[in-house]
Amino acid sequence: MAQKPSIPKGTRDFSPLEMMRRTYMFDTIKNVFRAYGYAPLETPAMENLSTLTGKYGEEGDKLLFKILNSGDFTRGLTPADVQAIAAEGELSGASANAMAARICEKGLRYDLTVPLARYAVQHQAEIVFPFRRYQVQPVWRADRPQKGRYREFYQCDVDVIGTRSLLCEFELVKIVERVFGDLGINVTLKLNNRKILYGIAETIGHADKMTDITVAIDKLDKIGLENVEAELAAKGIGAEAIGKLRPILELSGTNAEKLGRMKEVVAASETGLRGIAETEELFSYIAAAGSNLDIELDLSLARGLNYYTGAIFEVKAKDHAIGSICGGGRYDDLTGIFGMPGMSGVGISFGADRIYDVMLALNLFPEEAAIATRVLFVNFGGVEQLASLRLLQQVRDAGIPSEIYPEPAKMKKQMEYANRRGIPFVVIVGEDELAAQTATVKDMRSGEQQRAAFDRLVHFLRS
Amino acid sequence: MAQKPSIPKGTRDFSPLEMMRRTYMFDTIKNVFRAYGYAPLETPAMENLSTLTGKYGEEGDKLLFKILNSGDFTRGLTPADVQAIAAEGELSGASANAMAARICEKGLRYDLTVPLARYAVQHQAEIVFPFRRYQVQPVWRADRPQKGRYREFYQCDVDVIGTRSLLCEFELVKIVERVFGDLGINVTLKLNNRKILYGIAETIGHADKMTDITVAIDKLDKIGLENVEAELAAKGIGAEAIGKLRPILELSGTNAEKLGRMKEVVAASETGLRGIAETEELFSYIAAAGSNLDIELDLSLARGLNYYTGAIFEVKAKDHAIGSICGGGRYDDLTGIFGMPGMSGVGISFGADRIYDVMLALNLFPEEAAIATRVLFVNFGGVEQLASLRLLQQVRDAGIPSEIYPEPAKMKKQMEYANRRGIPFVVIVGEDELAAQTATVKDMRSGEQQRAAFDRLVHFLRS
Repeated sequence: MAQKPSIPKGTRDFSPLEMMRRTYMFDTIKNVFRAYGYAPLETPAMENLSTLTGKYGEEGDKLLFKILNSGDFTRGLTPADVQAIAAEGELSGASANAMAARICEKGLRYDLTVPLARYAVQHQAEIVFPFRRYQVQPVWRADRPQKGRYREFYQCDVDVIGTRSLLCEFELVKIVERVFGDLGINVTLKLNNRKILYGIAETIGHADKMTDITVAIDKLDKIGLENVEAELAAKGIGAEAIGKLRPILELSGTNAEKLGRMKEVVAASETGLRGIAETEELFSYIAAAGSNLDIELDLSLARGLNYYTGAIFEVKAKDHAIGSICGGGRYDDLTGIFGMPGMSGVGISFGADRIYDVMLALNLFPEEAAIATRVLFVNFGGVEQLASLRLLQQVRDAGIPSEIYPEPAKMKKQMEYANRRGIPFVVIVGEDELAAQTATVKDMRSGEQQRAAFDRLVHFLRS
Repeated sequence: MAQKPSIPKGTRDFSPLEMMRRTYMFDTIKNVFRAYGYAPLETPAMENLSTLTGKYGEEGDKLLFKILNSGDFTRGLTPADVQAIAAEGELSGASANAMAARICEKGLRYDLTVPLARYAVQHQAEIVFPFRRYQVQPVWRADRPQKGRYREFYQCDVDVIGTRSLLCEFELVKIVERVFGDLGINVTLKLNNRKILYGIAETIGHADKMTDITVAIDKLDKIGLENVEAELAAKGIGAEAIGKLRPILELSGTNAEKLGRMKEVVAASETGLRGIAETEELFSYIAAAGSNLDIELDLSLARGLNYYTGAIFEVKAKDHAIGSICGGGRYDDLTGIFGMPGMSGVGISFGADRIYDVMLALNLFPEEAAIATRVLFVNFGGVEQLASLRLLQQVRDAGIPSEIYPEPAKMKKQMEYANRRGIPFVVIVGEDELAAQTATVKDMRSGEQQRAAFDRLVHFLRS
């Protein structure tokens, strides 16, 4: 009868210790979002497949988790499906996908951006624009699981939609500074603008190949300049154009120097110049406000997602090698696919799993985040137990996480429990203590024992 | 191209206002769990179907949401499946279910109890028992959606497993008292014990029909005594036995009187007497600690789920008619199905959606829980904007949720935005204010305007 229990590959349980640390991380991030006037939103785990399909490219469609229709799901199948299934081995990926669409109406959320666009359009009458929201929820992708890549993971997004003001980009830069400052992670914020990239594509004579160019450039960090150039060549971009691109990708100097140089490079591209003006305005806000953040204009930053149209961001940890831990940008028509065109928005997403890994590697979680119970009362049974219960109630009413061992077990067993759970204080109310109306408090880390009168115990444990 | 966006029936978006109220509710509940020394746990949304199937009865199996296998899902189908699908209309519910199992390996979490049991068995080597955990996550059920019943909803569970101590039951009673006290909801806690119910079944000569009897009794509130008796008769329980049952279900008096009377009724049942002894011990802890909670021993309380073996609980709101808003009990062998027998546990689950509805109906959410942004800076552009940005940064650094309107729009539009978003304070830094280095602060509720020197603004807004 007994099953060996397990969970689906690519998914995780979060133990109490992991949860307490994750809660610390998420609370820190959410508190910054709140201080900046963003309000929370949650959308359902299941969306209609029609909402999700076609929004993440062909590859993304394949990675959607689909929910089998309830009841007799086979009702949706066509005679052609049945024949296709009967002709075993003949089923191609495409027809399996089409068939899946007939037996599945719903899929699991793939990111938080498409649901935001869907929500904004669906509730446009009630929403006050500009709409400032943050959203922290899991998403699901049927990716091949590997180290650091999961099929269920949390996203942590903050967006404002309904304004083209560059103050929003500035605000997101300040949010990045504050979040990683509060978490104690040294970071570099890389910044670029899709309009500048478009200007470059125009300048090298390939405005039509903007997507190919950004996709290739986006891989610069991972595969190096030579391979990027090979990929560009394979996409039909000539040697001359590639030659023009190289010095741009290798541009060095201060941000101001880079902008100055780029102004010459894309001088003939109206869009390119607009991108530079936007970037200059953003830098002017940052300069006026002052910032301790290391901000780098990186003209090779492209970001894969095609919906970006203006500023793009990416954040890297300085003291721990891992991919980008935060990224985002401006998108000008995300709600267009749902029938509400012209709604510009900008947002960033914090990569919770990678941030967690960085914090763990650099030992940045405070000790407090590992403590669930602060105080354990030893259980001696009888009248001592009743006295302990009364004191415990006071300690709990004061909001100090505490408990009593549920059985009058051997002292050694109870102490071992406190140790294994990392409980820092143990309160002992035995016969002597009861007679003296004074508890013994043992500091489990130092081993030191102190006495506290019953009516001073809460005060003692608080300090 | 444009799709009319919608979400699957039975699911919900939670707007910022709803989210802020829900966050207030969940935080209040979680703070109590933490004060009582429970630690958080999260399990994946998707579990293997083998973990879920057979745990919630035949009806429950039908309500599981199943995830279609990624890639070519049809590979799992057998020739018999294909024939069954081909013979259109012939497919019975059972064979559709069996077929579903061959194209779906995973399902969505149906509750938080089975995942807890699975987790405890899977991680028994690392867990420190008794294991005290709380878990607040959504669950999914393919129920027919109706008012107040959703296909995605949050459960909010607190359990301790690995001890038979009745101190745990006592602790849960205190948690119920504190949670609803903190939320401001007047409640009645109904209490019973499955062992007493078993004793009754034995006494009326139908120990073999324990399940039928509890299922029928459980409906007493909903369908009335007559219909319960009809259902018992239909299950083959004789008139004499039913006659013996009636006075028990209608028992009145104080809790002590009921216990005294029941001791006589089940005198011949060892299990029944044990149930009474357990209940007396629990009441003795409550009496010793003192409690403002209205606690009622209700011998007709049965609770549907069959895994309960000891104390059972149910909480009802006194001032708002709605079903039970919290419930739970002791289970002696939940982990047995996963190969770890003899692990007794006890827990309760708070019904977040119903509690939310009660709080909304009784106007129990604090006004603060409706405020995302406390302070809006009016945007006049130019040097006034730069001065506002500097002040805004100070206000945000002080943790006061605040923002600046992103564009120098007409004053009326900006004020309207503040009003519609329920922002209580608007800060004006115009030409005069800039010259005087003094901001104008408008209280949007009273309409009153006050002045605050720039270097006193944070202090002013804090008080």
